[in-house]
Amino acid sequence: MNLPLTLTDAAAAIRGGEVTSVALTEHAIAQADRLDGALGTYLVRFDEAALAAAARADEELAAGVDRGPLHGIPFGVKDIIAASDGPTTAQSLILDPAWAAGRDAPVVARLKAAGAVITGKVTTMEFACGMVDPSKPFPTPRNPWDPRTWPGGSSSGTGNGVAAGMFLAGLGTDTAGSIRIPAAFCGVSGLMPTFGRVPKSGVAPLGYSLDHVGPLARSARDCAAVLGVIAGHHPSDPDCVDLPLDLPAAWSDGGSLEGLRIGVVRARHFPEGADPAAAPAFEAAVTALTGLGATAVELELPYWTEMLTANLVTACAEALAYHRNDLAARWGDYFAATRAMLARGALVSGADYVQAQRVRRVAQDAVARLFDEVDVIVCPTASTGAPTYESLTDAEGRLDVEAMFAHIFTQYWDCVGNPVLVTPMGFTADGLPLSLQFAGRPFEEAVILRAGDAYQQVTGWHRQVPDLAAPQPAA
Amino acid sequence: MNLPLTLTDAAAAIRGGEVTSVALTEHAIAQADRLDGALGTYLVRFDEAALAAAARADEELAAGVDRGPLHGIPFGVKDIIAASDGPTTAQSLILDPAWAAGRDAPVVARLKAAGAVITGKVTTMEFACGMVDPSKPFPTPRNPWDPRTWPGGSSSGTGNGVAAGMFLAGLGTDTAGSIRIPAAFCGVSGLMPTFGRVPKSGVAPLGYSLDHVGPLARSARDCAAVLGVIAGHHPSDPDCVDLPLDLPAAWSDGGSLEGLRIGVVRARHFPEGADPAAAPAFEAAVTALTGLGATAVELELPYWTEMLTANLVTACAEALAYHRNDLAARWGDYFAATRAMLARGALVSGADYVQAQRVRRVAQDAVARLFDEVDVIVCPTASTGAPTYESLTDAEGRLDVEAMFAHIFTQYWDCVGNPVLVTPMGFTADGLPLSLQFAGRPFEEAVILRAGDAYQQVTGWHRQVPDLAAPQPAA
Repeated sequence: MNLPLTLTDAAAAIRGGEVTSVALTEHAIAQADRLDGALGTYLVRFDEAALAAAARADEELAAGVDRGPLHGIPFGVKDIIAASDGPTTAQSLILDPAWAAGRDAPVVARLKAAGAVITGKVTTMEFACGMVDPSKPFPTPRNPWDPRTWPGGSSSGTGNGVAAGMFLAGLGTDTAGSIRIPAAFCGVSGLMPTFGRVPKSGVAPLGYSLDHVGPLARSARDCAAVLGVIAGHHPSDPDCVDLPLDLPAAWSDGGSLEGLRIGVVRARHFPEGADPAAAPAFEAAVTALTGLGATAVELELPYWTEMLTANLVTACAEALAYHRNDLAARWGDYFAATRAMLARGALVSGADYVQAQRVRRVAQDAVARLFDEVDVIVCPTASTGAPTYESLTDAEGRLDVEAMFAHIFTQYWDCVGNPVLVTPMGFTADGLPLSLQFAGRPFEEAVILRAGDAYQQVTGWHRQVPDLAAPQPAA
Repeated sequence: MNLPLTLTDAAAAIRGGEVTSVALTEHAIAQADRLDGALGTYLVRFDEAALAAAARADEELAAGVDRGPLHGIPFGVKDIIAASDGPTTAQSLILDPAWAAGRDAPVVARLKAAGAVITGKVTTMEFACGMVDPSKPFPTPRNPWDPRTWPGGSSSGTGNGVAAGMFLAGLGTDTAGSIRIPAAFCGVSGLMPTFGRVPKSGVAPLGYSLDHVGPLARSARDCAAVLGVIAGHHPSDPDCVDLPLDLPAAWSDGGSLEGLRIGVVRARHFPEGADPAAAPAFEAAVTALTGLGATAVELELPYWTEMLTANLVTACAEALAYHRNDLAARWGDYFAATRAMLARGALVSGADYVQAQRVRRVAQDAVARLFDEVDVIVCPTASTGAPTYESLTDAEGRLDVEAMFAHIFTQYWDCVGNPVLVTPMGFTADGLPLSLQFAGRPFEEAVILRAGDAYQQVTGWHRQVPDLAAPQPAA
């Protein structure tokens, strides 16, 4: 059976009688049976519950009950997000199982109400920051494009699961890049919504003022479909606003970008060590966008260095505020990389933290002024394809955070809070995906989704999939 | 000449031809000539400019140009607020004169555009936290009801200046009580608007997330008139929102409070050492309010102790963020109390600060739930009259902050950010003013102003003035 590649196509195929939710779910389970051992996607699978949910979805549609674009769609959930179907661990020995027991995070409750079929809870880095730690009983996620490489994180299982067809879309979270990095390295689409667009309650926190919940999926349209379901105020998250989303009611192929003003950021995004394919791929992307009618103007991102520092200072202090009692009592139970980051948080003074928030404000204002001149800002997500685990971590799984972020350009946007869509942008000579970021004004996800969709329609990069036909080595 | 006591009466008298702005301003200057030496109100006086502004105000009115209720009204400005008419010192050797030179804070620009006559810059505590320091070249503000006592602070000169008739209204700022404490101890009215209601740019910061700019004046109506001028979004303060103010268009005497639900807080507000007159005065206030038709229900304020800690932790860390370079370089130039508070800030870790903000959020939610049941919350501003300087400070002017706040109940409201009006509520046996707080829902200043006005109309406490006929001892 030739199954639809994207969520949007699958939604149409279900309604056209070409496929059922049960068939999609059975395929998702078969993919997991075949690939999960190699790719380290799942922490727990809900095969039985998922098949039952799929059967219900099919029955409902047959009875004329249509819950919208996610109805009957196999869906993965990052395991720092509470779902009542099973345990929530945050890939950690630390998290009290009682915290999430029997509870759906608001975003999961909304997915279920929209008919999504939750196939399981998928890998992350411990509490979204811990990288891998061979001494801990959790799988190591692998990149389906090359199992020696990192799939990106911390939404690792969401990224590699979408890339490997284990589900059509999934939820990730992004505090310094954790949606966009795995989307980039796994060659899929990902959307970090505006801070405050999606409720983050029921999600184990990393940085209270930085955490964004959003989708990874195959295409911009797929991300829009998920955003339409999970967005909107919920009283349990006081950061979460109630503003209209204004997504396109329908998508048309061959859409023009006439009138769209695009800011193009090259500065700092092609440092020494960048992959030789990165700059040509980016220039081809800019050409594709102007070919669609957009105008392009070169920009620099203001307060770049200050914001990378502010992001780290803020995340470390906020993470320590949440973890300090456990850290003192259970140091050895934490992943090595988590401990290292939390310990850094102890070096952040109250005044440092306050200054970081002031710097963020100043940068937010400066970015808002950039967006007086342009509607969308594009820049690469990373200047390389997926790095190998070996190049990233020491023997204990500790990560050199600064070295990693020398080639990954995501943190800045968490720190200002603007929404960013990432989309595949071609490949390195080694066949690893490259990725493009579309940043927009706060609460203008619709603008970047429309631009990203036009780009995807004309380039087709989002339809490239890794070759998983061959037997995979165990992760 | 029998001059009007309140701003509101003065505004009517000017329009009725009973008094001129020049006459009001000449009286203000005469009061300053007679009393400023004793009361320590002014850091700098703008006599000449004020008389010129008053003459212009009279000419404009004669020509039919009416700028509203502040037109021609003598007005004092706390010296941490930039005004282009003279230097801004924050009562400190530290503040760079260039910071405020030639600049009007948005609130001052709005006052001027509304025709207010700025009579000068008035005393505070250094950077709104420094108490007094005899080694520094600044006057010591005194209480017009008893010069041995503290007029309250940090808006000390605004409070004693209004009480002594040196101006009809003035601007203060409130981070832990700095509008309401001097209003209480000097027997005048004061309004801390909702956090975000009034722009705080152009004001030397104490606590970025706690600073509120607002009026001290004779009555609730006077405070409303000032708020109507200074409130509203300004692009220079990203915390400042653009929400309608909805003040009463006109005030009617003998207004009823029928239908108003009042929460009455007694718990923790009458500790050991409270003045014997405090509780009876408060009960009389509650009786007056129910006599006006309001219903009363007893309440406790949730997270009381946590919020006092959160206020201190937050203010100390935020103040240190602003001051740390100067503090390292110029320790001895700071007031002893300022140094002590800033040094405490160095003990606040980033994680402490983050936790304090989380506690504030939880308390804000709990307070919002209280306001589901009531429209206004009343409690005493302090459980004593003005304390003597001797009882508050050591020989170097250092303040025992915790001891002081054992009898002053203002910090909680800064920390949640709800608006609070304070009004005189009678006297101690020693003839020192007592004071009542009316707290409201965020951005519902109109509700507490209406309740406070009805209370003032029926009790008349706001019309009591200190006896300043006798020659005053030098401060």
